Amino acid sequence: MVELADCFAPVQAELAGLEQEIQGELASDSKALSGLVGHISKYAGKRLRPALVYLSAKAAGGRVVREHDKLAIIVELIHTATLVHDDILDGADVRRRVATVNALYGNHVPVLLGDFIYAHAFAMSVDLPTPDASRILARVTKIVCKGEINQIFDRFDFGLTEPRYLKIIEAKTAELYAASCELGALYSGADRRRVEALERYGRSIGVAFQIIDDCLDLIGDEGVVGKSLGTDLESGKLTLPLIHYAATVSGAERQRFESLIRDESLTNRRARLSEEFDIGASLDYAFRRADDFIKSAMDDLDTLPATPSRDALRAVAEFVLCRKR
Amino acid sequence: MVELADCFAPVQAELAGLEQEIQGELASDSKALSGLVGHISKYAGKRLRPALVYLSAKAAGGRVVREHDKLAIIVELIHTATLVHDDILDGADVRRRVATVNALYGNHVPVLLGDFIYAHAFAMSVDLPTPDASRILARVTKIVCKGEINQIFDRFDFGLTEPRYLKIIEAKTAELYAASCELGALYSGADRRRVEALERYGRSIGVAFQIIDDCLDLIGDEGVVGKSLGTDLESGKLTLPLIHYAATVSGAERQRFESLIRDESLTNRRARLSEEFDIGASLDYAFRRADDFIKSAMDDLDTLPATPSRDALRAVAEFVLCRKR
Repeated sequence: MVELADCFAPVQAELAGLEQEIQGELASDSKALSGLVGHISKYAGKRLRPALVYLSAKAAGGRVVREHDKLAIIVELIHTATLVHDDILDGADVRRRVATVNALYGNHVPVLLGDFIYAHAFAMSVDLPTPDASRILARVTKIVCKGEINQIFDRFDFGLTEPRYLKIIEAKTAELYAASCELGALYSGADRRRVEALERYGRSIGVAFQIIDDCLDLIGDEGVVGKSLGTDLESGKLTLPLIHYAATVSGAERQRFESLIRDESLTNRRARLSEEFDIGASLDYAFRRADDFIKSAMDDLDTLPATPSRDALRAVAEFVLCRKR
Repeated sequence: MVELADCFAPVQAELAGLEQEIQGELASDSKALSGLVGHISKYAGKRLRPALVYLSAKAAGGRVVREHDKLAIIVELIHTATLVHDDILDGADVRRRVATVNALYGNHVPVLLGDFIYAHAFAMSVDLPTPDASRILARVTKIVCKGEINQIFDRFDFGLTEPRYLKIIEAKTAELYAASCELGALYSGADRRRVEALERYGRSIGVAFQIIDDCLDLIGDEGVVGKSLGTDLESGKLTLPLIHYAATVSGAERQRFESLIRDESLTNRRARLSEEFDIGASLDYAFRRADDFIKSAMDDLDTLPATPSRDALRAVAEFVLCRKR
């Protein structure tokens, strides 16, 4: 079993100071804000996006420079702001086994905290020597929000197609992976072709990650995944295995399936899905589609010179796929 | 009685296309997003911040250039994003006589819509020829959020002092006024001294505006003000007249006053405040303090050459004060 942290070996030195630097960036003379920042530090994740920044810089054959340290913090802050605002979206009360900010303070505070973190990330990007990062990150943030809004408006829509689903998850998840890779390569001075290959790599693993995340929401173990699961089913969010299942059944079975999601009186839809519906083949289909994206990511890596960082990006892609087990 | 729109005469031509340009900026291939953008256009306000951009450019003795059109849109978008997120904060269901986005779609959508609008404003600022606007606006957005967070954590704190209250409203309201004036002057090519005078002018009228807004929350007429009132009292937000009143009473009267705000079983605190407490002198005090800030704003205008735009900024300051009647 691959551990994600093991993949980061070639950039371990670069990542070492990250936690402290993020805390330092968000340090404040406001007691209220400091307390909130301290709280969210407890649900720090695997720091995958910062690792992608550094690994992409090296895999592109470029040099890791001072700007990469800023970029690593910026992409992680944008991701953190998204998480804080996502907690408002799905009413989740546990993230990475820590109470979410809104469970503690209501909806007021996390909206502002997320806004503050976004603004800080933009402020940091403006201080970089070229406007590329600011431009890319503002664009990506817009795409992420648009993707999430589209997903909300598509809830309970059993006519949702696979291409539209893929477009939405590319927007809401994969674009920030793509930007992390692109920015890492771009600021290392690598040529355009390699920057684009890494950007595509990031987008592909992002889509694969989200497909598998959506599968785990249906069949994962909360203790292992480390967050509330079953929220997609409860909120009427049709993800790839559900889209596939809906397309393969008809008549009474299809109606029974739609009721599982639409019937407001139902509880514990997640257990019912596994017990009352034969969704195995649809889950297999979704995992195969994730695999397709990982293969495409590997193809892009093949165009780069053989380096420990390229191998590490390979291992990251394999890890994304391994999460299914 | 001064009407705000009358003050904008020297920049009427510049403001004429604003509504359409804002809609054009937010145009989208997403039906969901387009619908939301169409909805919030209905609660367009007086466009005071764009007017400040243009008036400051001219009052500083500089030239209005193409960048000012972008800046006018940017500051209005940031203000709009703040409004959309503020509606989540105070649970308001009417803003400018239109249902708020969260009353229609729950809390999910307005968080993302606000994020999208913020990101679009930053994206626009990045495309300006110098990074000044991006830097100023990212900094201001951080200050606004910090001010709002501090205000939330200070709720029900009867030890809140006037200086701390002023610092909070300067952050949450006045900084964006200050930035609108600063950016207008800065991008017109005016010298630093004039840019700073206009920045101070903007900050002063912003503080005065918020003091009066807070008074109107206690004694205004919803039909005239055009938004839900009494929300500060209901949420335990201690504003200048309340801070002053708390400092002037003691013993049983003070306890009765604290109960008005603290007692969860009470309803209609706003009517009770007017009927059961003698707050007239405290309101007068708050209006006098607002007047002090307006006078300070006028002093800064006195350092600028006499132009129709300077006179218009004077009239804007007078309008802010007139709102009390």
